[in-house]
Amino acid sequence: MQQLVSRFCGKQSGSDVGPDGLDVLLSTGADARDDCAVYDIGSPVTLVVGSDYIRGPKFILHELGLLSDYDIGYYLAVANISDIAAMGATPIGLLSVIRYPHEMDDAAFRHVMAGIHQACADLGTLNVGGDIGNAERLILSGTALGVCRPGKVLKRSGASPGDVLCVTGPCGLLGAAVAYFPKRDTFPRTLPAETEQKLLDSWKKPRARVAEGRVLAQKPYATACQDTSDGLKATIEQLMRASGVGFRVNERDVPVDPAVREVAELMKVDPLALTMSASSDFQLAFTVAADDVPACRAEFTASGLDFTVIGEATANGEAVLANDHGIRPLPGVAWKHQKSDISLLASSTEDS
Amino acid sequence: MQQLVSRFCGKQSGSDVGPDGLDVLLSTGADARDDCAVYDIGSPVTLVVGSDYIRGPKFILHELGLLSDYDIGYYLAVANISDIAAMGATPIGLLSVIRYPHEMDDAAFRHVMAGIHQACADLGTLNVGGDIGNAERLILSGTALGVCRPGKVLKRSGASPGDVLCVTGPCGLLGAAVAYFPKRDTFPRTLPAETEQKLLDSWKKPRARVAEGRVLAQKPYATACQDTSDGLKATIEQLMRASGVGFRVNERDVPVDPAVREVAELMKVDPLALTMSASSDFQLAFTVAADDVPACRAEFTASGLDFTVIGEATANGEAVLANDHGIRPLPGVAWKHQKSDISLLASSTEDS
Repeated sequence: MQQLVSRFCGKQSGSDVGPDGLDVLLSTGADARDDCAVYDIGSPVTLVVGSDYIRGPKFILHELGLLSDYDIGYYLAVANISDIAAMGATPIGLLSVIRYPHEMDDAAFRHVMAGIHQACADLGTLNVGGDIGNAERLILSGTALGVCRPGKVLKRSGASPGDVLCVTGPCGLLGAAVAYFPKRDTFPRTLPAETEQKLLDSWKKPRARVAEGRVLAQKPYATACQDTSDGLKATIEQLMRASGVGFRVNERDVPVDPAVREVAELMKVDPLALTMSASSDFQLAFTVAADDVPACRAEFTASGLDFTVIGEATANGEAVLANDHGIRPLPGVAWKHQKSDISLLASSTEDS
Repeated sequence: MQQLVSRFCGKQSGSDVGPDGLDVLLSTGADARDDCAVYDIGSPVTLVVGSDYIRGPKFILHELGLLSDYDIGYYLAVANISDIAAMGATPIGLLSVIRYPHEMDDAAFRHVMAGIHQACADLGTLNVGGDIGNAERLILSGTALGVCRPGKVLKRSGASPGDVLCVTGPCGLLGAAVAYFPKRDTFPRTLPAETEQKLLDSWKKPRARVAEGRVLAQKPYATACQDTSDGLKATIEQLMRASGVGFRVNERDVPVDPAVREVAELMKVDPLALTMSASSDFQLAFTVAADDVPACRAEFTASGLDFTVIGEATANGEAVLANDHGIRPLPGVAWKHQKSDISLLASSTEDS
């Protein structure tokens, strides 16, 4: 049974299929239980594909019982599809790798899968395969695929000095939740129930910015784009390095979510630092030529979407925060993995 | 920098690009460190994609110091690319997910990556991205992508009664190695050095049958195909269920590797059972219409490849082993994961 998974008329865009519509048919999905998923692609296309492993330590909120098995499945799918959104592509499928410990019962496993399937459905795509089996502990990894029109992909490397820096919404909520809940009972007071719920919902109901990415890719607005899944500071620094520019971020323009502010006040830290630190948010940070901002905003508004301008690209190769008193380094702690200077492309081919 | 990764003229086939050559360009690879890898596909194509997690317990030989970090990286890549070979596709890239424990030093990590890169190079493809970072223990997972001409993909579901069942080589070596080495010092004697080396080399130098898969897909020879990474018995049973047929395997025709026979004799088990039991081999098991066997063999021979006919598909829905005395169930223990009756496609979408 073939299934049409993309004609560029998905519910995110609402547009009709044009003469350059790209048909992508899923001809072998997860139900076939074959060696691989199979797509038939009927016309020239740009294919994007990325993998994201979900770290165990990230799921401290699951270990505390605040996130369900369903929630972590949902999160896994969104985290992977967010990388597709960041390229301006339309997701066409997710492969999920779920390895479970012996003590995980069938109901719990089904809940993980149900969360994955619901997230795929919410983002207009589907789970097309993967790998399930035993492991010493729960392991969640995924690979998402997407397509866009040839040459329309959004990369991290295209920002030029003078481009404005934008973000699709406030960052830091997921990081604030991880900062708050494990130490909840050690603070002098707890946060209001509605604030706690908002923090938890950032993990339970994350949203990949697929619609925003597609708007950005449809016309040549975005010069560079990345999701904020490493936190806003790390994202800005990565865009900076990839594009060979600097960024001046305006302190007063960075959106700070009220819940993040409340956690920061309780923890006696700078709200802006908590907003910009490591946090597995799925906003998009992108750059647009200054002249294109009004047209880009009009497209966003027409689709019921929004973004905030928070700064601009500079020529000096530094990322700084500016306010009325001057400039300082970007606040917060950027996520960086231990061996980040060892590329996946390690050129060594020595034998062991 | 764009890189041509497939024009159907790779070193496996040696054939020229025909007028229907499929250009697949990798325009964003691992070196770009973007959100995803990006391919530009210039013509209609069938895309295949699969994920394989490498189980920790499988790597008992690594824990025993018999396999190096390089070896397990090499194995990870081959295991994933084997699924592409089983579909008759040409690999166009691998995404690798490598999560390492704190105590793994940079040199060890580089060796894992070097193994991955060498396997990709040996199979005519490359590592295009993935995910690296910390975890509580070493975690190895991957996703491989491949392409073939539209409609030429090999599935598990096409075998008909009367088709002959073939395998590209002896199975069970990797399973025999795992059966032997951990208990090596408990046997009355050890195996000769050259036998031990052959058993170890099955893990250290595995080969995905990319060339064989491509020959099978080039002309409509194979009616069904699967790799034997779950072991030969499980593979035959899966082909049987997918195609809705039975299989009669001829005991005298099943190739038994001499090293597997030696391990079986030492363990006092049936060599055929050890050959067919769970073993992460990467042979291809496939079916061919009886009339096509000579032409198919000629194509294999012309490419320096070989296969063995071990039985035929029947209409009765059972997998049996036949010899001069009659028939019996297929020997061996088929690999089966604990929750194999829960599909990746779990239709439940209940909330938690």
